Amino acid sequence: MRIDQNLAFMLQFENVAWFEDGQVKILDRRIYPREISYVVCQSYEEVIKAIQDMVTQSGGPYSAAGMGMVLACFEAQDLSKEEMISWMETAAKKIANARPTTSTRMKKIVDDAVAIMKESVWSTNKELLEIMQQYAIDEATARYSSVKEVGSRLADLIPKDGVVMTQCFADAVIGFIIERLKETGNTGVSFITPETRPFLQGARLTASVIQDMGFEVHVITDNMPAYIMKEKKVDVVTSAADMITMDGYVVNKVGTMSLALLANYYGIPYYCTGTPNLKHETIETVKIEERDPSEVMELLGTKVTMEGVKAYYPAFDITPPSLVSGVVTNKGVYSAFDLKSYFN
Amino acid sequence: MRIDQNLAFMLQFENVAWFEDGQVKILDRRIYPREISYVVCQSYEEVIKAIQDMVTQSGGPYSAAGMGMVLACFEAQDLSKEEMISWMETAAKKIANARPTTSTRMKKIVDDAVAIMKESVWSTNKELLEIMQQYAIDEATARYSSVKEVGSRLADLIPKDGVVMTQCFADAVIGFIIERLKETGNTGVSFITPETRPFLQGARLTASVIQDMGFEVHVITDNMPAYIMKEKKVDVVTSAADMITMDGYVVNKVGTMSLALLANYYGIPYYCTGTPNLKHETIETVKIEERDPSEVMELLGTKVTMEGVKAYYPAFDITPPSLVSGVVTNKGVYSAFDLKSYFN
Repeated sequence: MRIDQNLAFMLQFENVAWFEDGQVKILDRRIYPREISYVVCQSYEEVIKAIQDMVTQSGGPYSAAGMGMVLACFEAQDLSKEEMISWMETAAKKIANARPTTSTRMKKIVDDAVAIMKESVWSTNKELLEIMQQYAIDEATARYSSVKEVGSRLADLIPKDGVVMTQCFADAVIGFIIERLKETGNTGVSFITPETRPFLQGARLTASVIQDMGFEVHVITDNMPAYIMKEKKVDVVTSAADMITMDGYVVNKVGTMSLALLANYYGIPYYCTGTPNLKHETIETVKIEERDPSEVMELLGTKVTMEGVKAYYPAFDITPPSLVSGVVTNKGVYSAFDLKSYFN
Repeated sequence: MRIDQNLAFMLQFENVAWFEDGQVKILDRRIYPREISYVVCQSYEEVIKAIQDMVTQSGGPYSAAGMGMVLACFEAQDLSKEEMISWMETAAKKIANARPTTSTRMKKIVDDAVAIMKESVWSTNKELLEIMQQYAIDEATARYSSVKEVGSRLADLIPKDGVVMTQCFADAVIGFIIERLKETGNTGVSFITPETRPFLQGARLTASVIQDMGFEVHVITDNMPAYIMKEKKVDVVTSAADMITMDGYVVNKVGTMSLALLANYYGIPYYCTGTPNLKHETIETVKIEERDPSEVMELLGTKVTMEGVKAYYPAFDITPPSLVSGVVTNKGVYSAFDLKSYFN
């Protein structure tokens, strides 16, 4: 049984990024679920462009990288073995750098693909392609396995029939939380997802995954968490993290900090999911980038503000360890003040 | 000089609600500033419908009520004086009840219009219409005068070249804050307005008023205040109030409570503007209504969520007095714990 088998539609490997018949198709998360549409890539260069255009996000680009290497291999089928290895090394380098902020993790995935190719024995191109695709599936499976540990541990922190408020889109974590809730019979749990402007990852992605997997979910706008936490008796607030520094700061989608502060005010635990980052000893080394603010002044491409009005667009904010009730990892739940224990 | 003369376009009487040539035109605040368009009413019944359809909001319906009475008078011009008074009394009753939550204040405006008509002496219908329109203008002027006091006092709490974060749309308060800042030469002040989903009063109305009056304004989405308060060094957070109870709770557009909590966390004052409400001794007597949640799942009329996903839509939230740094009224600035002093 494949690890993604019981997850929501958009979390299944075929709908994240998938090589078949000489092309890679990637679910367009920019418009899902309003439209179920795939960007179809005929070359690994087109996969890079899709990643850069943010057709997929969160864990999606890692899957696209793996499948992009399969496609690169398909493109190289008329080359000699030596030429092919050189071609694949070039592809690996380019795919790894599709987006600067994720290049370290991407590099590992594509470099491993090249290594597998070098080590493997094959007699036909078809065999090689199968080896490469199996590698891409194994890599995605390994990522999901770790996420499944995280999701299960988080699920076990949710009280019977509890109400969970999520932030943005925690990708497969959400799927594995629900899978675990089903396993343990805690199926009365319900979810509340702030919409997460400007791209609405909460309203579109998180809510769809929960709905798809048969649990109740309510969307709210991003100014409603205070009222809703109190009046709807939220039991657990949770988010993933773009980065957890070793001194316990959570860098995540903008809005996380105020959810954590509100949770603290109302006496609700806020759990962050993810892995502490050894490369950032302290929050002082993290720079929050502000993006092109035009998205903030638009709704679905329509500008709503008067000419001359400006905007700010910080994509992330920083939650201090004092507002984090626990960091839920694949190895267990840690205090934000004791993250070195994760590596012991 | 008329009190609204130097205010932004949308705050000027002619663009709020205005009787002219046998009709009342009301600026459509639902689409402003994307489109500058007026709903034109040929009867006072159409004015009621416009109020119910929320063509205008905040202080707008009070102006529409006054001008609606002028239109009712125009409609009655062929009646005898006795019939006319009866017709006007009926109009007053109907207009006052256009929206249940504002009926007390509306009733005063329309009843006073009837009283003025009864007391006045006129020889032609044209004269009577002029008397009624002058009453409507005087009533709006009296409202603006009180708001001007509030705006001036708030403006005087803003440090030199300070950064002000507003919530939702405080109507003419914003205009009079800026008028006062100009008077006192504090023209380096800038503003930050969360967009205020689902209807975007912050992005569309507040930002437009500020921009129109020549001050710098940045829009943010409703999940960005935490990051922005800290990183852009906000000096003052302010909102109006739909209701201030005598025990110091602020009932206002949803999102206000988390702004107040964040301001408290970062050591920034949060000032609420308005008048304490003697009818509500404590917050216990206030019921927060939740509205039809479909708006939450839509952006400009396009549904973005998956079939089956639900939503909540509380229009207001409650900020406790411990998070309010001051209640700025037309008479002065009061502690939220000492609102009885306002009536001394």
